[in-house]
Amino acid sequence: MIRVGIVGGTGYTGVELLRILAAHPEVEVTQITSRSEAGLAVADLYPNLRGHFDLRFTEPDVKVLGDCDLVFFATPHGVAMRMVPELMARGTRVVDLSADFRLRDLELWASWYGMPHESAEWAEKAAYGLPEVFRSEIREAQLVANPGCYPTAVQLGFLPLLESGLVDSSRLIADAKSGASGAGRQASVGTLHGEMGESFKAYGASGHRHLPEIRQGLMSAAHGQDVGVTFVPHLVPMIRGIEATLYAELRVPGDFDRLQDLYEQRFSNEPFVDVMPFGSHPETRSVRGANTCRMALHRQGDSSMVIVSSVIDNLVKGAAGQAVQNMNIMFGLDETLALNLPALLP
Amino acid sequence: MIRVGIVGGTGYTGVELLRILAAHPEVEVTQITSRSEAGLAVADLYPNLRGHFDLRFTEPDVKVLGDCDLVFFATPHGVAMRMVPELMARGTRVVDLSADFRLRDLELWASWYGMPHESAEWAEKAAYGLPEVFRSEIREAQLVANPGCYPTAVQLGFLPLLESGLVDSSRLIADAKSGASGAGRQASVGTLHGEMGESFKAYGASGHRHLPEIRQGLMSAAHGQDVGVTFVPHLVPMIRGIEATLYAELRVPGDFDRLQDLYEQRFSNEPFVDVMPFGSHPETRSVRGANTCRMALHRQGDSSMVIVSSVIDNLVKGAAGQAVQNMNIMFGLDETLALNLPALLP
Amino acid sequence: MIRVGIVGGTGYTGVELLRILAAHPEVEVTQITSRSEAGLAVADLYPNLRGHFDLRFTEPDVKVLGDCDLVFFATPHGVAMRMVPELMARGTRVVDLSADFRLRDLELWASWYGMPHESAEWAEKAAYGLPEVFRSEIREAQLVANPGCYPTAVQLGFLPLLESGLVDSSRLIADAKSGASGAGRQASVGTLHGEMGESFKAYGASGHRHLPEIRQGLMSAAHGQDVGVTFVPHLVPMIRGIEATLYAELRVPGDFDRLQDLYEQRFSNEPFVDVMPFGSHPETRSVRGANTCRMALHRQGDSSMVIVSSVIDNLVKGAAGQAVQNMNIMFGLDETLALNLPALLP
Amino acid sequence: MIRVGIVGGTGYTGVELLRILAAHPEVEVTQITSRSEAGLAVADLYPNLRGHFDLRFTEPDVKVLGDCDLVFFATPHGVAMRMVPELMARGTRVVDLSADFRLRDLELWASWYGMPHESAEWAEKAAYGLPEVFRSEIREAQLVANPGCYPTAVQLGFLPLLESGLVDSSRLIADAKSGASGAGRQASVGTLHGEMGESFKAYGASGHRHLPEIRQGLMSAAHGQDVGVTFVPHLVPMIRGIEATLYAELRVPGDFDRLQDLYEQRFSNEPFVDVMPFGSHPETRSVRGANTCRMALHRQGDSSMVIVSSVIDNLVKGAAGQAVQNMNIMFGLDETLALNLPALLP
Repeated sequence: MIRVGIVGGTGYTGVELLRILAAHPEVEVTQITSRSEAGLAVADLYPNLRGHFDLRFTEPDVKVLGDCDLVFFATPHGVAMRMVPELMARGTRVVDLSADFRLRDLELWASWYGMPHESAEWAEKAAYGLPEVFRSEIREAQLVANPGCYPTAVQLGFLPLLESGLVDSSRLIADAKSGASGAGRQASVGTLHGEMGESFKAYGASGHRHLPEIRQGLMSAAHGQDVGVTFVPHLVPMIRGIEATLYAELRVPGDFDRLQDLYEQRFSNEPFVDVMPFGSHPETRSVRGANTCRMALHRQGDSSMVIVSSVIDNLVKGAAGQAVQNMNIMFGLDETLALNLPALLP
Repeated sequence: MIRVGIVGGTGYTGVELLRILAAHPEVEVTQITSRSEAGLAVADLYPNLRGHFDLRFTEPDVKVLGDCDLVFFATPHGVAMRMVPELMARGTRVVDLSADFRLRDLELWASWYGMPHESAEWAEKAAYGLPEVFRSEIREAQLVANPGCYPTAVQLGFLPLLESGLVDSSRLIADAKSGASGAGRQASVGTLHGEMGESFKAYGASGHRHLPEIRQGLMSAAHGQDVGVTFVPHLVPMIRGIEATLYAELRVPGDFDRLQDLYEQRFSNEPFVDVMPFGSHPETRSVRGANTCRMALHRQGDSSMVIVSSVIDNLVKGAAGQAVQNMNIMFGLDETLALNLPALLP
Repeated sequence: MIRVGIVGGTGYTGVELLRILAAHPEVEVTQITSRSEAGLAVADLYPNLRGHFDLRFTEPDVKVLGDCDLVFFATPHGVAMRMVPELMARGTRVVDLSADFRLRDLELWASWYGMPHESAEWAEKAAYGLPEVFRSEIREAQLVANPGCYPTAVQLGFLPLLESGLVDSSRLIADAKSGASGAGRQASVGTLHGEMGESFKAYGASGHRHLPEIRQGLMSAAHGQDVGVTFVPHLVPMIRGIEATLYAELRVPGDFDRLQDLYEQRFSNEPFVDVMPFGSHPETRSVRGANTCRMALHRQGDSSMVIVSSVIDNLVKGAAGQAVQNMNIMFGLDETLALNLPALLP
Repeated sequence: MIRVGIVGGTGYTGVELLRILAAHPEVEVTQITSRSEAGLAVADLYPNLRGHFDLRFTEPDVKVLGDCDLVFFATPHGVAMRMVPELMARGTRVVDLSADFRLRDLELWASWYGMPHESAEWAEKAAYGLPEVFRSEIREAQLVANPGCYPTAVQLGFLPLLESGLVDSSRLIADAKSGASGAGRQASVGTLHGEMGESFKAYGASGHRHLPEIRQGLMSAAHGQDVGVTFVPHLVPMIRGIEATLYAELRVPGDFDRLQDLYEQRFSNEPFVDVMPFGSHPETRSVRGANTCRMALHRQGDSSMVIVSSVIDNLVKGAAGQAVQNMNIMFGLDETLALNLPALLP
């Protein structure tokens, strides 16, 4: 059994990790920390876990966490980068669900997150936890930076286009939409039901923290070619789910006929990417609670504009599910363990 | 492996059976029927099942269904009562999720369902599939009548009060609320999002088909004492979930102190009933996708009115989950197989 | 023109007052206060008011407020009772939308609101602002205590039954359901969309602050007869709307035939109470944004249990709309001014 | 008083016309037709209209409709084009809310709507009812083609960019999102609450009927320059509201500084277009029930990509409200009559 610890377990990604790990045959969750809720039984905060976990939240303590085989960080940015170096020294492996180790360029990181980065060494050594691109690095890594939710949906959807070099990578557009759970479980006026129910809006349209992560990933896929990407997130009055509609212009319009094959082949061995038939419309509910990224291609008339619609559950493939997938890879397990159930539909 | 067939697989209870059975280690779904969608791949109708089932809908055929070890009926009322006798003759076991075999009084059945009952023999032999009351009958039964969704939430919540005889059973009130999936997947104006989103209403307040089923169950629990129950269902702008707030008056107000113990003991061996601490407020989301009925007791001041709040997922404990629980019992399996995962929260 | 001030204008009842008063031909809103947002333009907080109001929030100042003809308090409890005496002394009239002056029994008030009451004089002089019962008192009052949202829906629905003495008033049940806006616009975890979207629950089932207000109103209607009422509120995943399902037992079952007439006659001159045909199901959306209380009666078989379903918009007839109705009465205006528009449906 | 008739009054645009016209001081609705509901009282179908209209649905009859001063068509496509010529001959004026007279190119119309057009004469004579562009034509017109909902939000948002020639008009992108009421009130599986609640998806991504209308309008704004536009609509789990996020590339990046002024000046005299401060995020709820189109501009870093977020209520500025605005213009009334109320927020 893999002994697992979770740091910052009171948020949505924390409870989602527990929900998934409850069904994992090779994992024992031995501790879960929360400064604010130390002492409280996990099942008292999350009644869906009654009967599944007998854990209580504890104060985070690196020494105790160091006894785990793997620690998940489900914390706000700035926490993991301070605790990770000591865990690394103790030989514990880490999957960080926060943003701390996602960007290579630490000045860029500092400018978007408003604080200096404190662990340049591990930012360089961390593997970026998108298995569809970095599976072999993840397998060997002691530290995995789990991707952001939007970056997962956007990168996977653009990947075949950029890797193949078929599109003009200088003017990509990613129009993305997310449910409320992406904003976390902190009390705030903006995500009250009374404020965001029955309403829709863009937010962060002048710049969102996931933009540099998306650009970094797309540049990597484009073999270093320059990438220009406009990314606008929107808030949907629902709880889970991200849909990203992606726009890219083919260099040669006639290449449109090759795209469906290109996508299907690119992901043919991927257990968690599902390319639907050309012209399908993936629904976020079709991946609710599941670790799947489902996508489809569209063309309008004889246009050279490629349209990709890509959906994930932001808490699963966009966070906790992908983290468990990374753990499975790191420990040489079947990559789909605890992740192979159908989505909850309706 | 148990060979399972599903009749009427295009509705919400059908897809929910498939979702649950996808994780069942002892079951193989060998056929699923639908007159309207015969030939269509199940995964084309329900994309969440892509990669999980390679089945196509077929025309229902009793001979072919007779090869199954167990057949679930997920059909409108009136279908099962016509097909069940032949399946019984062939030795196939059946769990009927429709209303056909729930009522003992077939004239009452005919008056509520608007047609004569066609299988008096099997209506008498059917076990009522509420395991918390009829587990031993279910184990031996060839035919199980799976309870309605409201009747499940209401009966479980009232059970200890009626079995113990502590309350006045002549003026019980069950004020129940359900999400939209209870109305099924048929096109209808009343359950359009544009009609029922952002709105709340009672419906069937002058009489709903689940009323006689509830009364029959409560009378059975009350050892034949007369039962008077008022049942008003309401439509909640959500998809899954039922909450029933139950009101019953104690004969002796001082008995209030015994109730929490009474409830906990009554259900102490039940894997799918969870009595929360006194004064808790169960949320429907705490059972979303799970087979649990979660409940709690309340008292206002020194009132003699017992208040019980009882929640289930109408598609799981209120339909497909309870059906699989019944199947597990019928085949001598661990009762919780495929049903022991935490609810999807948030 | 009536010069109107609003104290505590940043919450949902504040913005709703502005929305309604924007269309009032006899009112000029001259000031709106907020300690936390002083200096901010109202339209910057509430973009729906862009182009309708050129006001900025100011610090509350009794002297300045005293220049108004009427001041609305849209504040948490405890604020109005401290400022009202001075406004009364200055001759300003007040409609208090908070709970400060609703209860006659100030010890009871103190026990439910957790602080001593500070204005016994005005608590006694205040008129209870339910025009359907206290219209003449309201007309003469300098201070009107605007009823709570639940108490409005529950009292109006029970009124004819209690005034006529036809039911057993000792075991009334009010099972009420409200949208999220009833909880106000304060940041809190419990009313986040991620927490309460797609979920339903009871809350305050062991005792809610509106219970004593309901009991006081029902006792008044029952001509001092003893009233026993059980009141359980529930949270609905929608923004606006309250539905209350009311249960009362007829002393003489045969009186059921008289009830529809009784209700229609009781409210025949009321511009904002609409009795629907017997057996109808009022929807909350049918009163969204409107000052109407819509209700209907039901009977199950030959039961003696009267069922009433009563709906209001909690922010309109349950708060700001009723407050404007009261203002219209106080100033001798047409009672329906600014309140006679159809609800927003769908 | 203007005598108004409504053809096809049972749908959402029909009831919305009634809601708005209930407050119109110069209008009397004299008839409303529906083949399916002839004889039914309007208020029985739409309880929010109880007490506001005493009308019953009637069979449509051109002779009777010809007595009206103005007839609104709130019908599916194909109805108006058959009845309009006779109404024109009788001198009645018409605002057609359907698609019948929106496109100039009738072969294009036929290819998108699957039937030949039957009134080429009036298709040519009809004014396109976007007052912000065609106000003078509308004033004189006997027949006004009311724009589609998406085309209204998209055209208004792009207008200043195309009229000024500042952007590359060959690769415009309009990523639009709509609530469910845009799909109408017909029973259908796809817009059941159980299907589309808590889910988000693109639809019509390979081609939607509003695409040619959008292209026609943008070409007109671009002074005949070639326009290439990709338009992808999405379905949001809410009832009312459209948000369109628009992307266009500046020819000269330095022109970004001029855009806010350009937008404010373009719409400075428009009563129903509100340009918010640069970098704002318009919410659909800020226009719920109101005739306003609210928009804001965004830039990411020093990108040359202009981002416009434009919101309307699809049933008001996107349908019934704009229709009443057109009627006001046609009859020389104050353009804002019955349309100058704040949106319903929250």
